[in-house]
Amino acid sequence: MSETIGMIGLGNMGTPIAENIQRAGYSLKVYNRTASKAAALVASGAKSVSAAAEVASKGGIVITMVSDDKALEALCSGPDSFVSRLGAGGIHISMSTIAPATARRLAAQHEMLNVAYVAAPVFGRPEAAAARQLAVCVSGPAAARTKVSPILAAVGRSIFEFGEDPGAANVVKLCGNFLLASAVEALAEAFTLAEKNGIERTRVFKMLTQTLFPCPVYQGYGQRIAEHSYEPAGFRLALGFKDINLVLQTAAEVQMPMPTASLLHDRWLSAMAKKRENLDWAAVALGVSEDAGIKV
Amino acid sequence: MSETIGMIGLGNMGTPIAENIQRAGYSLKVYNRTASKAAALVASGAKSVSAAAEVASKGGIVITMVSDDKALEALCSGPDSFVSRLGAGGIHISMSTIAPATARRLAAQHEMLNVAYVAAPVFGRPEAAAARQLAVCVSGPAAARTKVSPILAAVGRSIFEFGEDPGAANVVKLCGNFLLASAVEALAEAFTLAEKNGIERTRVFKMLTQTLFPCPVYQGYGQRIAEHSYEPAGFRLALGFKDINLVLQTAAEVQMPMPTASLLHDRWLSAMAKKRENLDWAAVALGVSEDAGIKV
Amino acid sequence: MSETIGMIGLGNMGTPIAENIQRAGYSLKVYNRTASKAAALVASGAKSVSAAAEVASKGGIVITMVSDDKALEALCSGPDSFVSRLGAGGIHISMSTIAPATARRLAAQHEMLNVAYVAAPVFGRPEAAAARQLAVCVSGPAAARTKVSPILAAVGRSIFEFGEDPGAANVVKLCGNFLLASAVEALAEAFTLAEKNGIERTRVFKMLTQTLFPCPVYQGYGQRIAEHSYEPAGFRLALGFKDINLVLQTAAEVQMPMPTASLLHDRWLSAMAKKRENLDWAAVALGVSEDAGIKV
Amino acid sequence: MSETIGMIGLGNMGTPIAENIQRAGYSLKVYNRTASKAAALVASGAKSVSAAAEVASKGGIVITMVSDDKALEALCSGPDSFVSRLGAGGIHISMSTIAPATARRLAAQHEMLNVAYVAAPVFGRPEAAAARQLAVCVSGPAAARTKVSPILAAVGRSIFEFGEDPGAANVVKLCGNFLLASAVEALAEAFTLAEKNGIERTRVFKMLTQTLFPCPVYQGYGQRIAEHSYEPAGFRLALGFKDINLVLQTAAEVQMPMPTASLLHDRWLSAMAKKRENLDWAAVALGVSEDAGIKV
Repeated sequence: MSETIGMIGLGNMGTPIAENIQRAGYSLKVYNRTASKAAALVASGAKSVSAAAEVASKGGIVITMVSDDKALEALCSGPDSFVSRLGAGGIHISMSTIAPATARRLAAQHEMLNVAYVAAPVFGRPEAAAARQLAVCVSGPAAARTKVSPILAAVGRSIFEFGEDPGAANVVKLCGNFLLASAVEALAEAFTLAEKNGIERTRVFKMLTQTLFPCPVYQGYGQRIAEHSYEPAGFRLALGFKDINLVLQTAAEVQMPMPTASLLHDRWLSAMAKKRENLDWAAVALGVSEDAGIKV
Repeated sequence: MSETIGMIGLGNMGTPIAENIQRAGYSLKVYNRTASKAAALVASGAKSVSAAAEVASKGGIVITMVSDDKALEALCSGPDSFVSRLGAGGIHISMSTIAPATARRLAAQHEMLNVAYVAAPVFGRPEAAAARQLAVCVSGPAAARTKVSPILAAVGRSIFEFGEDPGAANVVKLCGNFLLASAVEALAEAFTLAEKNGIERTRVFKMLTQTLFPCPVYQGYGQRIAEHSYEPAGFRLALGFKDINLVLQTAAEVQMPMPTASLLHDRWLSAMAKKRENLDWAAVALGVSEDAGIKV
Repeated sequence: MSETIGMIGLGNMGTPIAENIQRAGYSLKVYNRTASKAAALVASGAKSVSAAAEVASKGGIVITMVSDDKALEALCSGPDSFVSRLGAGGIHISMSTIAPATARRLAAQHEMLNVAYVAAPVFGRPEAAAARQLAVCVSGPAAARTKVSPILAAVGRSIFEFGEDPGAANVVKLCGNFLLASAVEALAEAFTLAEKNGIERTRVFKMLTQTLFPCPVYQGYGQRIAEHSYEPAGFRLALGFKDINLVLQTAAEVQMPMPTASLLHDRWLSAMAKKRENLDWAAVALGVSEDAGIKV
Repeated sequence: MSETIGMIGLGNMGTPIAENIQRAGYSLKVYNRTASKAAALVASGAKSVSAAAEVASKGGIVITMVSDDKALEALCSGPDSFVSRLGAGGIHISMSTIAPATARRLAAQHEMLNVAYVAAPVFGRPEAAAARQLAVCVSGPAAARTKVSPILAAVGRSIFEFGEDPGAANVVKLCGNFLLASAVEALAEAFTLAEKNGIERTRVFKMLTQTLFPCPVYQGYGQRIAEHSYEPAGFRLALGFKDINLVLQTAAEVQMPMPTASLLHDRWLSAMAKKRENLDWAAVALGVSEDAGIKV
């Protein structure tokens, strides 16, 4: 009989991840606030439960993929939480993008119940999740990491280990998102410099992404920014702002100035003030144009 | 009998470019301030001359690849310059990285002598030049661009056209160098954030350049920055500072703030003040570490 | 018989404030974690109590002057707090520099107990407090503000009213501290520009503060910065960093980028990383010099 | 018989300066491109000449007060310039706000003709000039400074000496203008923070300029910014942008990053892009509001 894994959070990332785990032969107990999102998984054999804690079984494994620190902390707290229910020997695989400090605090709380907290944030869009092409960063207790590695292998293309510190994997995830946001801002400045010199944005985009920057993120964001095309959002601007704040907060905790992150913070904040929170985060490029006196 | 091309400037970029032109079947007349650098080309059939202007023949083509705006302006000025000697119908292919404003000013001066100024700055290191893997950005008079296209094809892997404005190709070149410098700063901030959280810089480097940023420039600069390895210089920090200044100057002329470029300017300037001008420009990463209280 | 006022927090600001209230004819009940600090006040007739809540009497007035948001929130919470003990009709005059958001949250909690929360942060050093020269910013319920105005008049030279919003007075206090920090950074940059040009810092300091900027804050900070004299601290760098963080947090809540505050954040954070937290906050000027390659 | 002084440049600063010199008992020979501006001075006894060089007499003194580096350099160059005409023993008192580098270059050229270049930029508005309330910064050859000190005493309230370096006085002038621009930006950010929190800008302005910042520049610019009142311009935004560029250029020459100046550069440049060049330079505050999503 196959091992049963608990899964909390069936959003646009959690669902394809759960499907891949199911395909790899595991049984699933799933929970989502909006229960209807579990339908397809249930049709494939998953069991849907009506309270988050019920996905857990004594000494088992639970995966969480929720929207932010607050949501995760709420799930993990209280005597009736899934963590309590996992109990000694249980493992929590935490895939959300959260603050390293939150991960460390939660890990300490888990430890008191002899539950292992394994941080496993992922890189990739929903399509990459569906195609099992995610990159997974992992950190936490070594034994637990070893134990869950087949599950993570079912989810992603490559797994990167970052040691025992439960915050480490989240630090790396934030590093990645910070580099993405930096590239977005830099592309916007470059294309606007070209435009103000009478050169078509898309021509510069094509040249640069065929030569110096032939990687998907420059190509994807470059096209959006060259064309000022921000709907539908691939990654909402408001979520990006949350991540930039996590970067700055994490940097402040270790006493490190990040001037680029500060600049991004101000750029994103202005976009929020201009009601662009639901556009793709590349829409910060509109602010670059406006500062140069261009009406888009 | 093959057409003869004049070539001024046989530095570490000019020499492999000249060699490829020679290999493509053209005859060369070459000039370099240090004449000895012409030896290999002469051995392959080029003619070396003792004054820059002598590379030009009436109505012919001259390529220049020199260090900066000032050097190029000096070459082009005066009644005995190679431009005067080219005369009506002549073409000057200008490959140096210079200010768009300089290109425009030179082009106007050339026009008075009925010489076409074709801007053709290139992307790529000396090894790429040797391997005929450069990317060439071209702008200037259409007829002249058409005429020189076989020569440019002999030099690079791909040619990108940016219209009639003689400054346009240089704007695009500056856009590219600006994006590179931005990536250098962002990588330095990201790796230092990881380091201050107890994570090895090289582990983050490997993860990010295998996943989100699998392109040569992130891989190359990422490794240097992860390892703080800045000698020998691939691109001298002082030259990079020159380019960032050209970016800011070009942006100011079209009334466009570039906050990322301003930040880079300050970072590079501090590195100059700390006597790092001869290190690779990725050495600005040392400043990121120092600001975070880390002694490298 | 004179009215009795409760006072919690007898630090270097709280003590002279309490003394002036006493001199104005009020009786005092005082509390401080380190009880010995109450000695002088007790000698002049104050009553010292051993638990913070005991300073409060039903429907009375309590003043707090503590170090930060956390300290104040701890004092105000719980069924046995001084706020509960004040009860209906009571007034809390809150003089600490805290986040406007904290003030608003506390005010809402006070309101449920029918206690009025009056925000009354002050501008001025301990000597100004002793000399009754503080400037007081006040906001909160109008009736309560009217009732406490004689007490505030006993404390400061001038009182500035900012309406009903309990957060407003704290916003203004943060505006003031932000302007101070900006002036510190700007003075440091100006003096270093002079120094790098071979001009004595103190000569520029004297000229500018006798002409354009003849006000005490430029004169005081200007002298410290010109002379790089940061001990003993008038205002600790770490406390200044706290305030800059409150500024940025408050600005983010209302969706407003403050690029100067971001720059100050990075400058202060680097000074923290370099272990300067106990110097005067003007010591951020050391970073300005270091970035310019100057060893102080 | 009184000594005759030459004066070139009768703009809104040059005219009141010339009048005060005349009042102090000197005879004047004046030149202005628009000759009509000399009328009042001529009515009081000055002699107006039709070519700039004619204001100079062999071994005499000439004062210049012109708009920028270029204008001054044009005046000083050529065999028929006023400098040549001054000849050995002559003194040029240069009052314009120019780059220190320009002052140094001009001084070297003057020296070859045995003319002393005395840099004497001034602080103060036209009204201050009329009221003899200017502050004058002086640098250059000691003997020449001594000789011209009675003239400078006729112009200003206070004279500040900065030694032999002809660039020094201009460096100090730039330091002052930089501090002014920094204060403008900081006031704009502070008032907008208040406004976004529901507080009237003018109330914060009044409080801060009666307490922490009781000096004319904060009061003057504070009021403009609080009221968004930028016409008529006291100091044109475009001229302020010129000065910020001189600050950055001077800082770059001595290898010093000035992050606040970079931020101001970007702010001013955006205001230029938005066609605000003829408003008072405090109008950069409009950009602060716009970035916060406020339509003014």
